[in-house]
Amino acid sequence: MAEETAKSKPIRFGILGCAEIARKLSRAIGLAPNAVLVAVGSRSLDKARRFIADNGLSAADVSAAGSYESVLDDPGVDAVYVPLPTSLHVRWAVAAAQRGKHLLLEKPTALCAADLDLILDACRSRGVQFMDSTMWMHHPRTAKMRELLSDSARFGQTKTIGSNFSFAADSEFLQNDIRVKPDLDALGALGDMGWYCIRSILWAADYELPKKAIALHGAVKNEAGVILSCGSSLLWEDGKVATFHCSFLSHLNMELSVVGTGGSLQLSDFVIPFEEEKAPFSFASGSAFTELVTGWQPLPSKHIVTTSLPQEALMVEELSRLVASIRDSAGKPDDKWPTISRKTQLVLDAVKASLDQGCVPVDIVE
Amino acid sequence: MAEETAKSKPIRFGILGCAEIARKLSRAIGLAPNAVLVAVGSRSLDKARRFIADNGLSAADVSAAGSYESVLDDPGVDAVYVPLPTSLHVRWAVAAAQRGKHLLLEKPTALCAADLDLILDACRSRGVQFMDSTMWMHHPRTAKMRELLSDSARFGQTKTIGSNFSFAADSEFLQNDIRVKPDLDALGALGDMGWYCIRSILWAADYELPKKAIALHGAVKNEAGVILSCGSSLLWEDGKVATFHCSFLSHLNMELSVVGTGGSLQLSDFVIPFEEEKAPFSFASGSAFTELVTGWQPLPSKHIVTTSLPQEALMVEELSRLVASIRDSAGKPDDKWPTISRKTQLVLDAVKASLDQGCVPVDIVE
Repeated sequence: MAEETAKSKPIRFGILGCAEIARKLSRAIGLAPNAVLVAVGSRSLDKARRFIADNGLSAADVSAAGSYESVLDDPGVDAVYVPLPTSLHVRWAVAAAQRGKHLLLEKPTALCAADLDLILDACRSRGVQFMDSTMWMHHPRTAKMRELLSDSARFGQTKTIGSNFSFAADSEFLQNDIRVKPDLDALGALGDMGWYCIRSILWAADYELPKKAIALHGAVKNEAGVILSCGSSLLWEDGKVATFHCSFLSHLNMELSVVGTGGSLQLSDFVIPFEEEKAPFSFASGSAFTELVTGWQPLPSKHIVTTSLPQEALMVEELSRLVASIRDSAGKPDDKWPTISRKTQLVLDAVKASLDQGCVPVDIVE
Repeated sequence: MAEETAKSKPIRFGILGCAEIARKLSRAIGLAPNAVLVAVGSRSLDKARRFIADNGLSAADVSAAGSYESVLDDPGVDAVYVPLPTSLHVRWAVAAAQRGKHLLLEKPTALCAADLDLILDACRSRGVQFMDSTMWMHHPRTAKMRELLSDSARFGQTKTIGSNFSFAADSEFLQNDIRVKPDLDALGALGDMGWYCIRSILWAADYELPKKAIALHGAVKNEAGVILSCGSSLLWEDGKVATFHCSFLSHLNMELSVVGTGGSLQLSDFVIPFEEEKAPFSFASGSAFTELVTGWQPLPSKHIVTTSLPQEALMVEELSRLVASIRDSAGKPDDKWPTISRKTQLVLDAVKASLDQGCVPVDIVE
């Protein structure tokens, strides 16, 4: 009986669509102590069944559905993970919220903030929890770094932030991946990788919105007009400056550098840590030159943050915790995650607008 | 007798001015196996004498002079190191060249490329060697990194370059240092630190000049109009993009990141290595995500390059080698270093022009 009670507690997830990334999330749902995968929906029942078989799931525990609707109509599903192409987010995320399903939505959350607002409004009116799937936010390294950045005695005031995310897509990707298709993921590299860069910058700025975005010259688009590589600078009222660059056309790279008046933070794997169980970063505080300027004193310190659960599982765990408080304790949705999503999307919109207008400064208005 | 022959061979240096940085260079001249410091000139004879005493030099070996002219007129001086404020470079560097003294000129080399050309013309017409004092160019780490970047099978084609150099100046510096004075070092942080950033970018681009500079919004100037903090993006014909940021107002930071199609390079102490005897960097090639995108494969490799001589001594050694070939073997000045200096100054000029014109794109023309 005790086991049955425990079993009734986990948040029951459905997945809409069998995207490659859904494999990682199905594993994460399995690893999260308070979540369980119960349904996988695809436009093709066969595909859903194959997904279940291929990912070591049990057909007895996870039901295959031949449509997204079936998952949304399933009263045994509490929350859905939506890894569909961005152009389908409004339709399916709104449908999910309207049926009372809590939402873990793959990034970019929408093609623009107005679209995201439709989703967030639907969530709000049905009282469902919203979270985007920016997994690195949930790594314990992120919390440890936040602790150091928040320590004004050690870090001071943030002045510059640099963020880069690239990977070298092969020709198959550049021809056929949904992320280079204008009707599927029209934001291209900006939506896929720039999302993370923008999020990391907002994170470093403690979610204070920049005042302006000014895209960098030199963006690369494919023949259909989808961004393959671009960058931007962001500017805050207080003089903080950030730059980012994202690309499908360069070697794998994930640099994040935050420099304050009193300290600096650097890591080279901010989105996907080099290794799943341990994540490094470097932090310096109060460093100055040695006598005769022949070295640094003190040297930056190297930190390694270990985790027993992968960051995606921690993300699922956090969402499930919030959902459980709504489902089981009459709690209300937490506004933290939708607010952060919306700020990310607003900045992304401004960068896109600046790019579209020839790299002019574009105001960011909440 | 053998000893005397050996002693007559080193290149004999004079130093013009007792700037703080001259202490480091006097040590470097002492360490370089083919150089010797023979004269220190200051506007004040007392100051020159004090410099000699304070820096462990022997008054018997190093003569103190009460004027820069005395050093330039000294037939026992082969080369001079000029750490004077930038506004004095044209006057004294030209004077030195005209008297046949080879030149190690502190950076920024001049207030603008037109000024630098006066210096380079003077050097050319007297057949003296010119080199600017960008010391990290001479660290063996730099050669090792070049080797990796040049290996197209491992690194591919360079796509993005990011460079940052900042240190947190104290209020004394921000009030009184020559680098915040419009009549002394009018280029401020751009000349002092941006010089290194621009050089690192040109180095990473194998000295191919960018086509355009577009300064970043958000530069900070002092009341006198001297730049305390600024940044820029740079754009090449082939689509390469670089950004840099330099500042007197942020914690010590020296990031350099170069990303190619097949590899990436990262270091956090490119100007002054953390420790004098060994310098680290990180290099990745052909890295991709592991199955399920939970890590990297292969991981970036960490490299440590040791050096028995500090980078400044290696710089003096390199200049002395070039000077010796002119002095002792009827060789001609090597055009490599003046060419690199001039490109750096051209880019710096364009960034300054872009800043002055409200961050518009400015063409860089050789």
